[in-house]
Amino acid sequence: MKAYLGIDIGGTNIKAALVSSEGAVVDFRSMPWSGRAAVDAVDVVSTLTQNLTSANEGHEIVACGVGSAGLVDTAAGVVRLSPNLPEWRDVELQRMVAEALGLPTSIENDANAAAYGEFVAGAARGATNAVVLTLGTGIGGGLILEGKLYRGGGFAGEIGHMTVDLDGDPCPCGSAGCLERLANAEAVVRNVHRLVEGGQKSVLVTTGATTVLTAKEVGEAAAAGDAVATEALEETGRALGAGLANLVLILDPDVIVIGGGVAAAGEPLMAPARDEMARRCYCSRAALPPVVPAELGSTAGVVGAALLARDELPSA
Amino acid sequence: MKAYLGIDIGGTNIKAALVSSEGAVVDFRSMPWSGRAAVDAVDVVSTLTQNLTSANEGHEIVACGVGSAGLVDTAAGVVRLSPNLPEWRDVELQRMVAEALGLPTSIENDANAAAYGEFVAGAARGATNAVVLTLGTGIGGGLILEGKLYRGGGFAGEIGHMTVDLDGDPCPCGSAGCLERLANAEAVVRNVHRLVEGGQKSVLVTTGATTVLTAKEVGEAAAAGDAVATEALEETGRALGAGLANLVLILDPDVIVIGGGVAAAGEPLMAPARDEMARRCYCSRAALPPVVPAELGSTAGVVGAALLARDELPSA
Repeated sequence: MKAYLGIDIGGTNIKAALVSSEGAVVDFRSMPWSGRAAVDAVDVVSTLTQNLTSANEGHEIVACGVGSAGLVDTAAGVVRLSPNLPEWRDVELQRMVAEALGLPTSIENDANAAAYGEFVAGAARGATNAVVLTLGTGIGGGLILEGKLYRGGGFAGEIGHMTVDLDGDPCPCGSAGCLERLANAEAVVRNVHRLVEGGQKSVLVTTGATTVLTAKEVGEAAAAGDAVATEALEETGRALGAGLANLVLILDPDVIVIGGGVAAAGEPLMAPARDEMARRCYCSRAALPPVVPAELGSTAGVVGAALLARDELPSA
Repeated sequence: MKAYLGIDIGGTNIKAALVSSEGAVVDFRSMPWSGRAAVDAVDVVSTLTQNLTSANEGHEIVACGVGSAGLVDTAAGVVRLSPNLPEWRDVELQRMVAEALGLPTSIENDANAAAYGEFVAGAARGATNAVVLTLGTGIGGGLILEGKLYRGGGFAGEIGHMTVDLDGDPCPCGSAGCLERLANAEAVVRNVHRLVEGGQKSVLVTTGATTVLTAKEVGEAAAAGDAVATEALEETGRALGAGLANLVLILDPDVIVIGGGVAAAGEPLMAPARDEMARRCYCSRAALPPVVPAELGSTAGVVGAALLARDELPSA
């Protein structure tokens, strides 16, 4: 049976999956890696591919799609640079993977690949215009416009670095008041610690302990009635909602899909985000798009990359 | 010779033009109107059309396109509401104009029409992806994506109400810190007055005089070395640049076209806007889109509306 190989290269892990023509995950694997040289990443990709191939002998892999963190020049097959892969600069990833695997290979930005996965096989199925956000360490975005992945000049969808707070805190990107700075995982945890340092009590922070908090834990604490967790997520949600409003005002999509680790905080984050979005779209229209959770979870990137490879193949 | 009628309905004036198939303006007229009932607007449209018809007997008008301020539901042919036309609510403008003129008629948001005009016959000619902004009392936007006018669910391009300053001043739209609030004509003049009230001297404001300033005058004063004018436009340009950066990060267009009365301030506004855009797109890419002045001036809307009507006609 024909299958497509989807690869997702992040800063700490590389994921790989065999994906059917319809977008179903046949087999999924993940391996940690150093996040350093691209040749090392390609070695891991080869190993994962061998594992998938030998475990799934009934499937014939006909093409490979790679999603990578960073600024990906799909047409040139090159990863220009990536904050999460600091050694990468103008890496000819498409050629390297194609040569290593002996497969027709396409590359794409990881957030775009995830958006395409959600569009073909996940929460944005059936939409004409969809925005897919991934909230995690960074905030990535992918746009489906008029039923196709929209790339603009190549680097569209850099949603995380839109300015929502003109005089806000500096962002490592060089700008300030970026959505990512105000609504990523770090922002949630920072909000918790600031409130606790301000004297409020929370189940999340015990004096003297160096707790590593996740957004999910903060969400659970908020759901259980913890006031600090609730307030921390409300503040994060408010910034997120302003970003969502901007996307609605500019793009008027049918649906907004939100995935990633921070989205695991659930309604204590999403409810204030929706409220703020609505407040800031007052002038726009009565019917706001639904804001829904992503469906594919950590496989969105590999599914989307595989399906982009499918769609790149000449139909002959 | 075949020609298309383009209409542009604003809050104080209605413009009309005969436009050739190629987007050239054959004849252009404008009339003031009350800005009140839609039937009055349609009467003015009829009068303008009669004037254009009798003055251009060699031309046969085959279709009419209307650009209107407000939230325009193009598919339904209805203007939902318009801040500049406060009496309008669910106005069946397409039907009313079609019946009054006896012509195939289409309607469109005025900023979208202007964007389409600049795309087919103006400064965005040849672009694949373009953002066209009109800076005036309001800030309107129109998007050309993948070579077509992008409407999203119908109301895309509401660029003026994107949040760039989370805790900024309230905007009449109900939100706060909107780009429009920080970078419209009023913002330029407000900045001038605030600086003068703070003790700075400017050629623009003489004590006791109630001067009505235009952005163009502020631009001229800045070009002549007036420090207050320069600072007022820098501040406006900074907010504008953040808005432009958001558009670049989200849409990665080939070109940004800026028209409208505030754009007449020229380089003292545009240079800081470009600088701020670049600063806030650091992470995005090396090649930023050019930010260029609109070419069609006050005829962009009628030209675009006429060409949209042309493109709506069945080709038979």
